[in-house]
Amino acid sequence: MAIEEVEQANARFYKAFEECSTAAMDQVWLQADWVRCIHPGSEIVVGWKEVRNSWAEIFSSTKSIKLSISNLFIKVVGDMAWVECLENIATFFEHGFTSGQVQSTNIFLRTEDGWKMIHHHASLLPADVPDDWDEDILH
Amino acid sequence: MAIEEVEQANARFYKAFEECSTAAMDQVWLQADWVRCIHPGSEIVVGWKEVRNSWAEIFSSTKSIKLSISNLFIKVVGDMAWVECLENIATFFEHGFTSGQVQSTNIFLRTEDGWKMIHHHASLLPADVPDDWDEDILH
Repeated sequence: MAIEEVEQANARFYKAFEECSTAAMDQVWLQADWVRCIHPGSEIVVGWKEVRNSWAEIFSSTKSIKLSISNLFIKVVGDMAWVECLENIATFFEHGFTSGQVQSTNIFLRTEDGWKMIHHHASLLPADVPDDWDEDILH
Repeated sequence: MAIEEVEQANARFYKAFEECSTAAMDQVWLQADWVRCIHPGSEIVVGWKEVRNSWAEIFSSTKSIKLSISNLFIKVVGDMAWVECLENIATFFEHGFTSGQVQSTNIFLRTEDGWKMIHHHASLLPADVPDDWDEDILH
């Protein structure tokens, strides 16, 4: 089933991400000069060479990543697939870490070598204010 | 040609946006319960009814919008199309305005009624620092 295949391709992307592996990204992405990637709050990166460099740069400044996805939605139309999901991500650096939720749009193309990522658009969600937030603590 | 048709569908979306017209959005979007829309910095909106409401809410708080698109990229695979573009947008309110650049991923589906938008993911780019920015003025 195409949906299961795309779900697996999407999972391989997040495994490569969590493992900080550009070698695994090589297997996930279509290596074409028109693929595109938008990291949170950043300008678009165009072409596989530049996209690969952008991941290598992220991985080089990262000690480790913990990542899970939720709210997964997949739509397959012929040889193109659109995936929508929420990334729950914590990034650990040499000193300290950041964590947050990232809304992600991923697009895959069916090729002779299986489903390949052709687009990743990620944008940071505003941090939640807890329901039991007490404004009094501000005063 | 499919690419020209998708370019026109994308242009109709931005015309509806600039005209603040939910009636025009009715013609642009596929009215399905699985379409999705991510406004800049916001949580995902799922389903046509909710997506329509989100546009109506934006339009109701807006006096007028000036909008142009650049860096347009279109990829059509069968009955699905992926559009990437940069929105250069100024939004005018009763008092004052905001302006900025928004990176946008749009997905369209070919239907019996033409190409319909099924997904819009927009995220704000950081404001540019001018090339001739003089750090001395900070001191």
